[in-house]
Amino acid sequence: MKANCVSFEQLYRYITNSMIKLGMPPDDASKVGHIMAEADLQGSDGHGVIRLPSYAKRIKAGGINLNPSMRLVKEKAGMAILDGDNAMGHLVMKRAAEIAIEKARNCGVAWVGSRFSNHAGPASLYARMPMEKNMVGIYYAVGGANHTSPWGGLDMLLSTNPIAIAVPAKNEPPMVLDMATTVTSYGKIKVKAQKGESMPEGWMIDENGNPILDPHKTDGGIMLPIGGYKGYGLQLMVGVLAGTLNGAAMGSDVIDGNADFTSRANTGQAILAIDLDAFGDVDEFKLRIDKLSREMRTGKKMPNVKRIWVPGEQSYEKRKTQERDGIYLHPNLLSQLDEFSIAHQMPTVLQTAST
Amino acid sequence: MKANCVSFEQLYRYITNSMIKLGMPPDDASKVGHIMAEADLQGSDGHGVIRLPSYAKRIKAGGINLNPSMRLVKEKAGMAILDGDNAMGHLVMKRAAEIAIEKARNCGVAWVGSRFSNHAGPASLYARMPMEKNMVGIYYAVGGANHTSPWGGLDMLLSTNPIAIAVPAKNEPPMVLDMATTVTSYGKIKVKAQKGESMPEGWMIDENGNPILDPHKTDGGIMLPIGGYKGYGLQLMVGVLAGTLNGAAMGSDVIDGNADFTSRANTGQAILAIDLDAFGDVDEFKLRIDKLSREMRTGKKMPNVKRIWVPGEQSYEKRKTQERDGIYLHPNLLSQLDEFSIAHQMPTVLQTAST
Repeated sequence: MKANCVSFEQLYRYITNSMIKLGMPPDDASKVGHIMAEADLQGSDGHGVIRLPSYAKRIKAGGINLNPSMRLVKEKAGMAILDGDNAMGHLVMKRAAEIAIEKARNCGVAWVGSRFSNHAGPASLYARMPMEKNMVGIYYAVGGANHTSPWGGLDMLLSTNPIAIAVPAKNEPPMVLDMATTVTSYGKIKVKAQKGESMPEGWMIDENGNPILDPHKTDGGIMLPIGGYKGYGLQLMVGVLAGTLNGAAMGSDVIDGNADFTSRANTGQAILAIDLDAFGDVDEFKLRIDKLSREMRTGKKMPNVKRIWVPGEQSYEKRKTQERDGIYLHPNLLSQLDEFSIAHQMPTVLQTAST
Repeated sequence: MKANCVSFEQLYRYITNSMIKLGMPPDDASKVGHIMAEADLQGSDGHGVIRLPSYAKRIKAGGINLNPSMRLVKEKAGMAILDGDNAMGHLVMKRAAEIAIEKARNCGVAWVGSRFSNHAGPASLYARMPMEKNMVGIYYAVGGANHTSPWGGLDMLLSTNPIAIAVPAKNEPPMVLDMATTVTSYGKIKVKAQKGESMPEGWMIDENGNPILDPHKTDGGIMLPIGGYKGYGLQLMVGVLAGTLNGAAMGSDVIDGNADFTSRANTGQAILAIDLDAFGDVDEFKLRIDKLSREMRTGKKMPNVKRIWVPGEQSYEKRKTQERDGIYLHPNLLSQLDEFSIAHQMPTVLQTAST
């Protein structure tokens, strides 16, 4: 293993052990550990182990229910609303995806929304759950804090509300889009801050419209939506679908997850599963995706462009590389995790055995 | 009626009569006329009567089937694929929306995709169909010609692939997002060309990355996606959902609808209906949307911003104004329509009686 690298198993066990230390039942801790380590594995490093200290802070402040009773509060053949009882969002959305997959097998498509959920990490991992079952998965979420405003406004009423869409392929990498509806995500800003790098122009502005470049000085900063007013429209609609529709928080009801660690967040998410088998021959579909993928990647390039990517291809390659070489953890992240480990009297991530 | 203005009824009758002249059965002509006139009424003027001459050209060239036998080629409780038999897209997607609404009443949500459809006009009108039945409507479409490339590429493999989402409110205007995943739509470029205006920078570039400003010189021009690579990802995914999933054209299979008037386009679209009644009390939901809408609109504004809009509010106001004052038709559009009327030996739009 290279310096500052850990295996997936090692990271998974470290996070799982941390969650158990924090009082989470082992089965749940294992599920959360798996999803968080997978985030780092695929390069979604803003949503992986970097979040452990803030999750721990919320758990210790009583802001997360470690012994939840999740239940379906609404249900029809092709839909459900899952009340997460303030569990870790990872557990709520894993369960929601399982229900959506089951229902989509019967109806062809199914939609499961959540309320009283919490931050669930990388959108793509939930969209991938139906994908692994030969379905298209679509995931919407209300972000964990309002970092942006309606287009032209100053009130912090909207979050980065992400969309993920995962589509299986046959021989090519799957197509997996995972995007905040803002130009960047809060996770990426956290990574910049930790690496001591500045943010590029276009990520965030102050209330006079001037760019903010220091990732440590984002208080009151407004994150910019993609495509101006169009991205604002997407943010709002994703929030309606993932939040308002499920009776979850949206707009001014969204608490600031980076400042308030005790209130129930009532985070909402939604997952749509589309069963390919209902639409025709699954292999034929996947071969059409293969063809489309190759068409996109192999065409003529603009001057100075080295490679054309298909959504999800970079994560796919990162996943393969890090499975082989280990998951690289930035020195600043490692020291934060070491502090965490010492405070919780447990082995550091590098000391954690893989098996 | 003001100068150059027509009533909705007048425009509807003019388009309907035109379609009948072109050989369309009267019932179908009336449906197409209604949707096209409604496009102009709400200010979607790139998708209204401005398209009549090009639709006529396609119909006369044999590129549209005027006596289609639409049929469901795939069906489960919560989904269907509708084969449009190369009918006008308006007819296919109106039927698809009706089926989605019916199925969503039973399952809570339903998805209907189309194949062998054609250009269907403004996305929002189809998303509004479930909305009128207390549902959230979501519409995806593969655009009628490839005007853009994969991010960093030069091959014309992608279209403006629009998304529309319509959400009913109680006392406030409904929230209706209707957006191309490109910075602009081809309809808007056509409007610019007709008005003799130039395009703003950022709409389209040439193969060296230089901006194209003349809407008459768009050959080989590449329309830019919103948010750079994110918009490219959205374009591709919308195309997969509306096209590939249904066995409709996507990527290099998309014909150039502005140059080829005879081939079957095999256009694909998809509509998702989400029945609010399945998710809880419909009125409570609508009141939450009202609150959210007011929150967005009434907050503090950036310097020099006069008003904060909610998606669909401008169309809503346009609709009300034009219902009262008539639908304004640009003089250049009027002369094009006059030419059309003379060629088809029928009254001009201004001569058409309202009843």
